[in-house]
Amino acid sequence: MKPAMRAYDLIRKKRDGGALSPEELRFMVRGATTGEVADEQLAAFLMAVFFRGMDLRTELPHWLEAMLRSGDVLDLSRIAGRKVDKHSTGGVGDKISLPLAPLVAVCGVRVPMVSGRGLGHTGGTLDKLESIPGFRVDLPTSRFVELVDRLGLCLIGQTAEIAPADRKLYALRDATATVESVPLIASSILSKKLAEGIDALVLDVKVGRGAFMKTLDDARLLARTMVDLCKSVGRDCLALLTRMDAPLGRAVGNAVEVAESIEVLSGGGPADVRELTVLLGAEMLLLGGVSGGRERLEKALGDGSARRRFAELIEAQGGDARVVDDPGRLPQPRHRKEVLARRAGVVTALDAELVGLAAVDLGAGRARKEDPVDPAAGLLLRRRVGESVRAGDALAELHAATESRLEAGEARFSAAVTIGDAAPPGQPLVLERIA
Amino acid sequence: MKPAMRAYDLIRKKRDGGALSPEELRFMVRGATTGEVADEQLAAFLMAVFFRGMDLRTELPHWLEAMLRSGDVLDLSRIAGRKVDKHSTGGVGDKISLPLAPLVAVCGVRVPMVSGRGLGHTGGTLDKLESIPGFRVDLPTSRFVELVDRLGLCLIGQTAEIAPADRKLYALRDATATVESVPLIASSILSKKLAEGIDALVLDVKVGRGAFMKTLDDARLLARTMVDLCKSVGRDCLALLTRMDAPLGRAVGNAVEVAESIEVLSGGGPADVRELTVLLGAEMLLLGGVSGGRERLEKALGDGSARRRFAELIEAQGGDARVVDDPGRLPQPRHRKEVLARRAGVVTALDAELVGLAAVDLGAGRARKEDPVDPAAGLLLRRRVGESVRAGDALAELHAATESRLEAGEARFSAAVTIGDAAPPGQPLVLERIA
Repeated sequence: MKPAMRAYDLIRKKRDGGALSPEELRFMVRGATTGEVADEQLAAFLMAVFFRGMDLRTELPHWLEAMLRSGDVLDLSRIAGRKVDKHSTGGVGDKISLPLAPLVAVCGVRVPMVSGRGLGHTGGTLDKLESIPGFRVDLPTSRFVELVDRLGLCLIGQTAEIAPADRKLYALRDATATVESVPLIASSILSKKLAEGIDALVLDVKVGRGAFMKTLDDARLLARTMVDLCKSVGRDCLALLTRMDAPLGRAVGNAVEVAESIEVLSGGGPADVRELTVLLGAEMLLLGGVSGGRERLEKALGDGSARRRFAELIEAQGGDARVVDDPGRLPQPRHRKEVLARRAGVVTALDAELVGLAAVDLGAGRARKEDPVDPAAGLLLRRRVGESVRAGDALAELHAATESRLEAGEARFSAAVTIGDAAPPGQPLVLERIA
Repeated sequence: MKPAMRAYDLIRKKRDGGALSPEELRFMVRGATTGEVADEQLAAFLMAVFFRGMDLRTELPHWLEAMLRSGDVLDLSRIAGRKVDKHSTGGVGDKISLPLAPLVAVCGVRVPMVSGRGLGHTGGTLDKLESIPGFRVDLPTSRFVELVDRLGLCLIGQTAEIAPADRKLYALRDATATVESVPLIASSILSKKLAEGIDALVLDVKVGRGAFMKTLDDARLLARTMVDLCKSVGRDCLALLTRMDAPLGRAVGNAVEVAESIEVLSGGGPADVRELTVLLGAEMLLLGGVSGGRERLEKALGDGSARRRFAELIEAQGGDARVVDDPGRLPQPRHRKEVLARRAGVVTALDAELVGLAAVDLGAGRARKEDPVDPAAGLLLRRRVGESVRAGDALAELHAATESRLEAGEARFSAAVTIGDAAPPGQPLVLERIA
């Protein structure tokens, strides 16, 4: 008789640098899902993985499959066409999903998008969407599938049924300092994304001061791991490594980022937001098997069709679609304040992490998971990196519900800005493409 | 305002190779004791310590002090003379504490001894003592102190009040494969021993097949760490590294080991048990500031005074002291069976770990913490390493409550014995002395 598998032995095996068998990996994931493996054992296992890693060929695909199948996996096979999603590792001012999803959908790719909330200095797509009055991100699965079929897209939050093993393990990692592990990050992201029933995934892996990955080497390793892992379980994948030293665009917050997204969908908006939307969109068309590329995307931004699709999406998800024509209907702050430049010169740096934390101070984000966010809080950059400024010019406009939040945000924001004498050299938006 | 300390940050600091401050180490130990730090965070921290260690000078003394002070620390200062204990890292047939404590006490050193139970293939002093009818190891602290004062010794089990942080952390380590960490082992042992209120400690660090430490290097590192750590908190300490490839003596079990201990206290017994008792006793006299050394110890074994002190101890702890004169009063097995040699030759090996597991199979030990032990179960070696045997001669006599246990024990015991053609070279009992 084969002895029963024990979590203790698997922790020990990983601790000592061994590779777990597919059966052993499934045992740990099942134990996390059912609670049969104790939290302290899961935590010790995760820390051992932090130190020892997981083999990309022999372990990670089985770990990922087990996480993915720990809950419901949507079946979108009855919907014609390829289903493609985009995932960003998180940045400041990163509202790209908002213009990107309707843009790509209107070009013919299906976008079933399950997103997350903001935590720490980075914002979350769900929080931004919920700043649109009435917008619901907690739709039942049947409605999600219906909208992906009818409109070509739907944006919802993770449900309890999607990858419950990942919910459990992520909560433990978050409490036990085991988040920063490439195999655990890669399998966590992919387990949720692949449970949506997608055929392919485009990754936006952020690099820099405001990103989770601070160096190009770290970002490259994560991107390479996710792309290879995703392919190993039969889904297409590619990644762009993009800069996240300064915020994307001019708006950081929730309602302000929705407004900026509408500008992009109307053919305007900041050049970097527009450019990244089109670049990621072109990759989604490629993986989605839809021709036309950049030109087709530019056309859909210019002719109002992407913007109309966004309005239809808002309507379908219970929101007030009039915000698309009248962004003044979005939540407005009770207090506004301009941060003024103390000296003349050129903005040489806008530290994305500090700008993100300033937005949290203003009320736009969460210091803890359970905190509410203020949809109207945030900031608008009046000067960006490379732009000239005179002493007394506004560097940014801050939005908050209270004076004290404005003050906290101003102090933090001021620390994020560096004014020098000469413009820094321009930086490319995309650093690498990994396919 | 200084931000509140968070377990997360301390786990992360240790994970990344940092050294924790005394305040941070106290925070973790207090969190373990009060439950304010969650089990999963403690487990992740322990795994990080497994990989990163703890600095012997800057971290371990503070960690140890915090563990030690997590509960009651006995104050034996009103008792005259130095208080010295002995701790063994655990072996098979290791009954040394039983003859050693009364022997050293009768020579004038106070021995306040808090012992443990057996787990896995090694036995425990408490289980052995409890095979004496009526013997109580759960005395209240006041009675413990009284007996150390009056008789010079007392042997009890760890109470809930002694080093509760260690109880908590050890249970977690046992479940999460983080037992095998030198700093954690050293601090765990010392926290319990120093809470007894001792002035000095003699360590018997076992090395070999039947020991926790399989190699001399590993044993040396543990001994060096414990000796230095113990001294760093102001208590004297030294260690002997002793062989544990084959069982100590001829008896392995509970009642059988008590009987063998009484033989030693009566001036007889197997040479190795007697020798190790005297060697460790001499070190205890040295650290206890009592003159006479080996000669004095030999005299106390020869003149019956050590034996009488053991009888007084049994009496004082509620046991039937008549076992000292009549070991037949100890629990007797329902079934006995001899294991016979299949060939003639010389016993070249008696694998201590397998002999220990055979004793567990017979009922003398525990496979799991909650298992009861059978005081009458065990085995007596009829042939030891280096001794000749004819085909059909008895190699050992097995004791058990049931035939099926006898059979399981016999199968395991047979695998422990190697019979060859020539006697192996003799091995020294003590490999090194670390002071």
